[in-house]
Amino acid sequence: MTAPNPRIGIIGTGAIGGFYGVMLARAGYDVHFLLRSEYETVLQRGLRINSTVHGSLHLDAVQAYRSAADMPKCDWLLVGAKSTSNPELAPLIVEAAGEDAKVVVLQNGLRVEEDLRQVLPNNIHLLGGLCFICAHRSALGVVEHQALGGVNLGYHSGSAATLEQQQALVEEGVAMFRAVGVDSNAADNLVQARWQKLVWNVPYNGLSVLLDAGTAPLMSNPDSRALVRSIMLEACGAAAACGHPLPDVLVDRMMMATDHMPNYLPSMYHDHAHGRPLELDAIYAAPLVAAANAGFAMPKTEALYQALCFIAGRAAR
Amino acid sequence: MTAPNPRIGIIGTGAIGGFYGVMLARAGYDVHFLLRSEYETVLQRGLRINSTVHGSLHLDAVQAYRSAADMPKCDWLLVGAKSTSNPELAPLIVEAAGEDAKVVVLQNGLRVEEDLRQVLPNNIHLLGGLCFICAHRSALGVVEHQALGGVNLGYHSGSAATLEQQQALVEEGVAMFRAVGVDSNAADNLVQARWQKLVWNVPYNGLSVLLDAGTAPLMSNPDSRALVRSIMLEACGAAAACGHPLPDVLVDRMMMATDHMPNYLPSMYHDHAHGRPLELDAIYAAPLVAAANAGFAMPKTEALYQALCFIAGRAAR
Repeated sequence: MTAPNPRIGIIGTGAIGGFYGVMLARAGYDVHFLLRSEYETVLQRGLRINSTVHGSLHLDAVQAYRSAADMPKCDWLLVGAKSTSNPELAPLIVEAAGEDAKVVVLQNGLRVEEDLRQVLPNNIHLLGGLCFICAHRSALGVVEHQALGGVNLGYHSGSAATLEQQQALVEEGVAMFRAVGVDSNAADNLVQARWQKLVWNVPYNGLSVLLDAGTAPLMSNPDSRALVRSIMLEACGAAAACGHPLPDVLVDRMMMATDHMPNYLPSMYHDHAHGRPLELDAIYAAPLVAAANAGFAMPKTEALYQALCFIAGRAAR
Repeated sequence: MTAPNPRIGIIGTGAIGGFYGVMLARAGYDVHFLLRSEYETVLQRGLRINSTVHGSLHLDAVQAYRSAADMPKCDWLLVGAKSTSNPELAPLIVEAAGEDAKVVVLQNGLRVEEDLRQVLPNNIHLLGGLCFICAHRSALGVVEHQALGGVNLGYHSGSAATLEQQQALVEEGVAMFRAVGVDSNAADNLVQARWQKLVWNVPYNGLSVLLDAGTAPLMSNPDSRALVRSIMLEACGAAAACGHPLPDVLVDRMMMATDHMPNYLPSMYHDHAHGRPLELDAIYAAPLVAAANAGFAMPKTEALYQALCFIAGRAAR
């Protein structure tokens, strides 16, 4: 294929940013990677994706940057860093964003776009991206891609005045991902899409930390399986109470999909194992607050969150 | 004091059986200890209690037995073993019980007397004992007594036909404990007393295992503290739904009492650390079933129980 026009910046080249950045760059897109601790390694050795789906992918000549000020102005910025870094990333995003840029927040949880929106000029479009992918970073510049890989996009805010303009921008992003072999769809309702993703993330992320276990053991023990299911149902109930009802079959479908996944350790497990901050605000606190404001109780989710706060607080001491 | 009459048997000489047995024996009671793994050590070195309340107590000439068949028939039997051992202990209790013996189950949780009752001849009196003590076994034949020490007694079942007869038997036990310096009171309603104790045990036992923490860190972190409190409130609600309302001030009083305790690792923590079975049935499953039968939900307690089942199941694998 010929190189398409848009210039793409990757803010946070971890598992998510690294995977999508490499997929886009290998297909000929002009991709620029902002890196911190991995800068030297990636400059010398490039980026590698060990994928059970695509095989071993290597990007040799990586356009790598230590500073956002050195990056060219980008048309699309994919934010793959953890939501816990958003306050410090915000100025870098502004710096790397071109006129009328599209910024896609590839993060889990609720309210991850709100803080970022405060600091972005209004001409910049903010989109949310929901990644359905099993991937983690195994070494500097190396991503293990275990399964899936899709990303759904929804418009959050910016200067697109009409719904048609917003949809056109989303379709532009969807087409870009599809062009490089990544499954992608438009999410008409971003908040609902975020709730839907939470139905998976709320049980598995936290329980993987609390019980030191991946999806397979959590699903094969009848008690933890029942706990996963009831936390999923709480998230569905909260979504409905907040005005974003989800399909009735969602929980059964997610349980079944997880049964068919390889044993997966969610991102929070890796964050905890490496002493990194946990995404507790986006995945737990924000949904709990939204549910409480709507008069809906999520007691098992709250218990899990409180236990995780203890673990995180103690780890930070 | 002169040696009182009753002959006392200790079934399960762990922290609880060891502590009360030594207190009774040192005061002159005729106490006989049934032991398993500690038999040889106790025979050679006796029993030691390192107590912050009573100082260092040593019982030198321990009347120790490997087999219940070798024990003399006892008037009182104090069952200090874990409730998880009750099925295998039942025949030993029958063997060591004299005519009209009083068997006191010094265990936590609900329904701990029920199974035992099935195998005891009707002439034997079954009592429940609620121990308010911070103690654990630190080595073979050695008990660390950290704080408190009281034991409240209530009549469960047996041949005492009238309430007066039952109360007289309970008072006999209360007087025996008081005579050796152990705080003791009659519990008029044994089931209510068991629920009241559960209000403490349900949060702290499980959370100590799940979060690998004693009472002090659990109480000093605001999130785990809130979790403890809400689980206590669930236990109070369940007790009330089951027809045993507890005093309104109980939760605040227990929180405050725990704040003033030394950092305490509950028995379930030690059981888990040593790979012993956890008392999940008595402390979690039985209360959850009782609450559910009364139409009362305990979601945070259930989440904790489900997480503990996962941990126990995995540990047993």
